[in-house]
Amino acid sequence: MRIVVDAMGGDHAPANIIAGVVEAVKEFPVTITLVGIESQIKEHLKKYSYPKEKIEIVHASEVVDMHDQATDVIRKKKDCSITVGVNLLKTPGYDAFISAGNTGACVAASTFYLRMIEGVDRPGIGVFIPQVDGFAFLIDVGANTEPKPEHLYQYGQMARVYVQTVMGKKSPTVGLVNIGEEEGKGSGFEKQAYQILQDKMPDFVGNVEPNEIFVSKADCIVSTGFVGNVIIKTSEGLMESASKVLKRQIKKEPLAMLGALLMMGALKKIKKHADYSEYGGAPLLGVNGIVMISHGRSSPKAIKNAIRAAMREVEHKIIDKMKAAVIG
Amino acid sequence: MRIVVDAMGGDHAPANIIAGVVEAVKEFPVTITLVGIESQIKEHLKKYSYPKEKIEIVHASEVVDMHDQATDVIRKKKDCSITVGVNLLKTPGYDAFISAGNTGACVAASTFYLRMIEGVDRPGIGVFIPQVDGFAFLIDVGANTEPKPEHLYQYGQMARVYVQTVMGKKSPTVGLVNIGEEEGKGSGFEKQAYQILQDKMPDFVGNVEPNEIFVSKADCIVSTGFVGNVIIKTSEGLMESASKVLKRQIKKEPLAMLGALLMMGALKKIKKHADYSEYGGAPLLGVNGIVMISHGRSSPKAIKNAIRAAMREVEHKIIDKMKAAVIG
Repeated sequence: MRIVVDAMGGDHAPANIIAGVVEAVKEFPVTITLVGIESQIKEHLKKYSYPKEKIEIVHASEVVDMHDQATDVIRKKKDCSITVGVNLLKTPGYDAFISAGNTGACVAASTFYLRMIEGVDRPGIGVFIPQVDGFAFLIDVGANTEPKPEHLYQYGQMARVYVQTVMGKKSPTVGLVNIGEEEGKGSGFEKQAYQILQDKMPDFVGNVEPNEIFVSKADCIVSTGFVGNVIIKTSEGLMESASKVLKRQIKKEPLAMLGALLMMGALKKIKKHADYSEYGGAPLLGVNGIVMISHGRSSPKAIKNAIRAAMREVEHKIIDKMKAAVIG
Repeated sequence: MRIVVDAMGGDHAPANIIAGVVEAVKEFPVTITLVGIESQIKEHLKKYSYPKEKIEIVHASEVVDMHDQATDVIRKKKDCSITVGVNLLKTPGYDAFISAGNTGACVAASTFYLRMIEGVDRPGIGVFIPQVDGFAFLIDVGANTEPKPEHLYQYGQMARVYVQTVMGKKSPTVGLVNIGEEEGKGSGFEKQAYQILQDKMPDFVGNVEPNEIFVSKADCIVSTGFVGNVIIKTSEGLMESASKVLKRQIKKEPLAMLGALLMMGALKKIKKHADYSEYGGAPLLGVNGIVMISHGRSSPKAIKNAIRAAMREVEHKIIDKMKAAVIG
């Protein structure tokens, strides 16, 4: 199995990316193709010892930054690591692409070069949301900010296949993010999406209010990219600010500091529980190829986890299953 | 000062409402008019000793529940505690109305019976969001799920007056909830709202990503009611689930349990920090009267805090100031 990794994408690229890739090739039965500025990649790889035959480099002369417009990347940066990496997937033997870089550019390049699978109009990014017990799969979290109601039905279909395949859950339930429990709540968009899901989606369980996302109300949760993005960024911001307030409080109280030491394991568990980046990358579903988008702040561990998640998708032949399910 | 309180609204009404009202009249220079089913209110009041002249009862025969449609309440439940309570504000001597009941019904009744202040098209609900240092005022969190872009400008104007008046902040900054930092991010709606705010709003600081809401990027943050509601419900759900996971973990580890005891103060501070219901009710801004909406799960303390917050609005003549600022 060979996975293509964007060496230049992310806040700590290429350092963190390459550190994660080296860990992955040591641990997993996988070959990695690093795409990016060859001299920089070589410079970083020098620091590590690893099985040389498991990492190859494909040079790409341009780098996309977080301020580049997605459409500009397609038109102007044709030799950037995202474009080159995505296009490698069209060659047999390259199984998946991972980037922690500009999300919009990844979505645009994947859609443009790989095209959509039949029956899906727009790609969606899914993430596993940690719940008190288990996980929910939330899609979309930012690929499609202004979807049509039927796109949410397509997201639901793909989410079910993903959760069935990757999590081994037989009949995953599907819910719609909405700001009220009953049918008829929300804006016109949510009312229409509810109707389509009600009519066509197996195991549709109705509206899921944002506070219910963290308890086991539905296995798959669909939303607009705008709202999904608000949910994950709100969670991220709240955990960070709560952690800052806690740390400050602990510094003020010596007994609390002792308490924190004793609780270290439990506190770390909470942090890990709430930190979805721990769970590797977020799959970009709907495009005709396995693409995984990682958080811009990805640690080496997050990159390693994203590689493992991509490997799982390849093993499970997720694209074939998704095609069969969406058309069927 | 006389404040009208809906005795029948909320998950634990009338018990929690009346307990909170009794605490308030003992502590604050305020008279309360409880609106609701007189026999039930009397039954609960019997349990307490309090200055009798500070609580009066106005009977309302009907009760609104959480499943009632807002418009049905206006048309059919004309003698419910919300309708009767809101209408009391039209009589001189009744200064504010507080309800922990059906939010949609409160918004609809307030809009219908009190009308809007000049220059504001739609009401908005504001909440104080606890930040690492201080607070931000987020509006709207659920009154207006499908606003026009110019409504967000009006929310910004009202939020500034509120923060200036109630928090004593001289030139509050205003930000727009969006899923990207730069101008041009988000859906068509956000792009239009950005333009209007950029052109007309003093101290506009641009987009605020949801993770930045908890740090001091802007004093006032405007959003659609849908997105604002998603933000507060996501925060609520995440804190609850994190707290459950932590408790479970503590039970498993005896040392962590000891640690938790030592950290009790600090942990309570986090909980309080993140629990916006602690800060009393959420003002419904834009209607021609002081209306405060409390969380359905309000504790007696939350009701008492809402009464104090309403008193502050009355003292500061918030409606007059808002009228002057919005027209001006």
